[in-house]
Amino acid sequence: MTPEMAVRRLKELDREIQLLDHANALLMWDEETYMPERSIEERSEQVALLQSIIHDRLTSPEVGDLLTAAGASDANPRGEASLPQESQAFLRALQRRHRREAKLPAELVSELVRAATIGQALWRQARAKSDFALFAPQLRKLVELTIRKAQCIGFVGHPYDALIDEFEPWTTTAEVRSIFAGLENRLGGLVARIGAAERIDDGFLSADFPVDKQAAFSKLLLEGMGYDPKRGRLDESAHPFTTTLGRDDVRITARYNSRYVKTGIFSVIHEAGHALYELGFSEAIRGSLLATGTSLGIHESQSRLWENIIGRSEPFWRHYLPLLAELFPSQLKGVSLERFYRAVNRVEPSLIRIEADEVTYSLHIILRFDLETRLVSGQLDVEDLPEAWNRRTQELFGILPDSDAAGVLQDIHWSMGSFGYFPTYALGNLYGAQFAAAMREAIPNLDGAIARGDLRVILDWLRREIHVHGASLTAAELCKRVTGQGLSPDFFIAYLEQKYAPMYGL
Amino acid sequence: MTPEMAVRRLKELDREIQLLDHANALLMWDEETYMPERSIEERSEQVALLQSIIHDRLTSPEVGDLLTAAGASDANPRGEASLPQESQAFLRALQRRHRREAKLPAELVSELVRAATIGQALWRQARAKSDFALFAPQLRKLVELTIRKAQCIGFVGHPYDALIDEFEPWTTTAEVRSIFAGLENRLGGLVARIGAAERIDDGFLSADFPVDKQAAFSKLLLEGMGYDPKRGRLDESAHPFTTTLGRDDVRITARYNSRYVKTGIFSVIHEAGHALYELGFSEAIRGSLLATGTSLGIHESQSRLWENIIGRSEPFWRHYLPLLAELFPSQLKGVSLERFYRAVNRVEPSLIRIEADEVTYSLHIILRFDLETRLVSGQLDVEDLPEAWNRRTQELFGILPDSDAAGVLQDIHWSMGSFGYFPTYALGNLYGAQFAAAMREAIPNLDGAIARGDLRVILDWLRREIHVHGASLTAAELCKRVTGQGLSPDFFIAYLEQKYAPMYGL
Repeated sequence: MTPEMAVRRLKELDREIQLLDHANALLMWDEETYMPERSIEERSEQVALLQSIIHDRLTSPEVGDLLTAAGASDANPRGEASLPQESQAFLRALQRRHRREAKLPAELVSELVRAATIGQALWRQARAKSDFALFAPQLRKLVELTIRKAQCIGFVGHPYDALIDEFEPWTTTAEVRSIFAGLENRLGGLVARIGAAERIDDGFLSADFPVDKQAAFSKLLLEGMGYDPKRGRLDESAHPFTTTLGRDDVRITARYNSRYVKTGIFSVIHEAGHALYELGFSEAIRGSLLATGTSLGIHESQSRLWENIIGRSEPFWRHYLPLLAELFPSQLKGVSLERFYRAVNRVEPSLIRIEADEVTYSLHIILRFDLETRLVSGQLDVEDLPEAWNRRTQELFGILPDSDAAGVLQDIHWSMGSFGYFPTYALGNLYGAQFAAAMREAIPNLDGAIARGDLRVILDWLRREIHVHGASLTAAELCKRVTGQGLSPDFFIAYLEQKYAPMYGL
Repeated sequence: MTPEMAVRRLKELDREIQLLDHANALLMWDEETYMPERSIEERSEQVALLQSIIHDRLTSPEVGDLLTAAGASDANPRGEASLPQESQAFLRALQRRHRREAKLPAELVSELVRAATIGQALWRQARAKSDFALFAPQLRKLVELTIRKAQCIGFVGHPYDALIDEFEPWTTTAEVRSIFAGLENRLGGLVARIGAAERIDDGFLSADFPVDKQAAFSKLLLEGMGYDPKRGRLDESAHPFTTTLGRDDVRITARYNSRYVKTGIFSVIHEAGHALYELGFSEAIRGSLLATGTSLGIHESQSRLWENIIGRSEPFWRHYLPLLAELFPSQLKGVSLERFYRAVNRVEPSLIRIEADEVTYSLHIILRFDLETRLVSGQLDVEDLPEAWNRRTQELFGILPDSDAAGVLQDIHWSMGSFGYFPTYALGNLYGAQFAAAMREAIPNLDGAIARGDLRVILDWLRREIHVHGASLTAAELCKRVTGQGLSPDFFIAYLEQKYAPMYGL
């Protein structure tokens, strides 16, 4: 069998895996939106079965043999050099997924699933009682299983390499560490300067904002951003998310807070940023495993670029504030553009990651990255985690958690066995700012277009430069191609300085 | 391997097939309710893949070997006589599904799918232009493929036996023919007598009935009938349907007509009747292939019993009319119970099946059964179908279709290759009336309970006598057990006479 023939057959097999992935995504979307509550247990059986069918197909001897016939291996995931670039990119992505699935023994996978189910239950209890000791034994178990997982997958440098690769393929712990090191000091300095300045008052954002009107405003936002309602939909769920159910079916959900208008607006912009990425892949890769975000960091760059860099900009609200005020005339009476703009950008060091502003957010991630790498390398014991958490919080934010619930127990990730996920949030901030800088150079008078509500120029640029590639390029390759250089925190810092120095009179 | 061991393993395999069936049902539910329109083509790929996985599992050599090990065969589908009754019922149902799937060659199945896709498109065109000739060649092809299908499946008497078995298992053409023969004359006589009586005026049902209020009334109906919102949901779709997505997830859809209040109300009661059946299986069979309606005729007996025998009864509206009038005070101003009751029961011979009342409805089915049995036995040529249709319509209803669109082209079924489906609608009317007669004997003062809105006694009886069994009993076994005798048109005729003679002063 020639490498070309092997690739052709692999693409057929991959196509079916994609269809099953999307069927599975529908099961999970429905669970979060419309499923009757009594069906929850059986739904997890349905999902587990589909996942096991997908696993069996990915790790089948046929796929292994075809990868070999195409010349793809751990050492050379792109296969034969004679193959077209696009086939090589396909092989690299498939080889990676095949390898990861094949290397994890089935019983370790089910042990992890079981431990995570118990972990989440205990975490919920522990958080409710703000008592880390309730959760500690199960967390220790999850860390142990995670270390075994890393060993099965294999790594050259740090065991965390095998974990971060799940979410941020081809990226190493050392790379992230070096980038975060450059970030920490400079963010810390900025936060300190802002902390010394006068606080912004955003009290008017807390009022009675009826949810149906928030939903109507969301539709306006989605339309403006270029999200096609024939290729997706907006529903409500307890936690906002984006999910891909097909080439032309990428759905988002929102959660509205009827007493605080910021929550809904910015989560909708954020999720739409994710969705537009998933809807923008080139015709050549649509429907294949390359039709996906190339890493969670790049995915997050799209959501955060839209949410923060565009969605919290002054020109954006120059266009949208009058529309929002039409829906909420009494609530926003007398609120000037300047006041609104400052309110949605208020910076405030806080204990809780998911409530953090865009300046302090990445510091929350640095904290978690620091602790989880030490947990999986054995340098930090679970027992010592709360103390380490609190000490680092004090260092980074100058405040001390008043409880485990507002500290080490605030996030669900570790209880689910998700180690290696956190850094992607901060990487998203950095990639987003670096891409935005390139976009600003490429589009003359970008702010003028935004102020006219002409967001289409942004989508066009993102689509052309970033979305079309999907996972054909790695995050590093994409960054190099779009911005001419590797990932650097400089762009993010420059963006923040430029935005917040005038706002806070620094 | 002992028969018991074989049954145990078959139940495990069946459980996974059920989970896949339900995942597939979700794909189809979503397609009709919330799916973005551009995703239609890929959705059919997803459905086709899941169906092929289900087919492969049902027809796998392992299933065949296990059925043999359990002693189940075409001649003896219930397996070893030493097995528990419940295992024998399970084997009978599985053996039947396995046999039907295994006997159809894959290329005939895909030819039928293709022919049906083209068939539906041509049928739509032909119906729009009211030109049978446009559809005839494709219909001929569909009939030919259907005859081949019947030959593959095999039959003893009439080729139609192999077809009706898909929808009404273990029922033969001869049985249906004999029942319908008894029905035709007696229905015809009743229709003629009603036709000679004064017509009922139902003009007030056509007015402005806002859809949101109709939906609110539907919730009241569902609550009254005992449909648990934690185990299902009500959405809207172009054609109302019921679908089962799990043991505790049976959903219905409605279509409301804002200018005609009857459409929505009775379709909701009808679909809820189906759903309550699917939600009522005993603990012992829940989640297995026995947890399904035992035939479409029995399924239809549940929907029609609720819709017509309960939902169009005078005591029912004694309770519900005041509630409806609260929602539509101006539209129903001055409408008495008597007037409302008569209006929703108006009998009128008409050309269109789906608009027919409960008296004339079964005549539409007799017409179709008559023609489709002759088509598949070769006694009637497709070319002669319109003439045969018109002649029989004249005989049965005393009116002649003014166009093919209002005649031979009105139903989608044949264009989809569905031959053998139609009789189940009329069988449902008959089973429903026969069951209702038994229920009326068992529940003292049933009408009093209905008039108080206490519909729970009905659900309890149906659940205990009918629903719990699922497909453990065949339709014939169930009928015998519940009513003490085989299916007979007498009960339906008696029900109609008792209801319509006083209404029309016959």
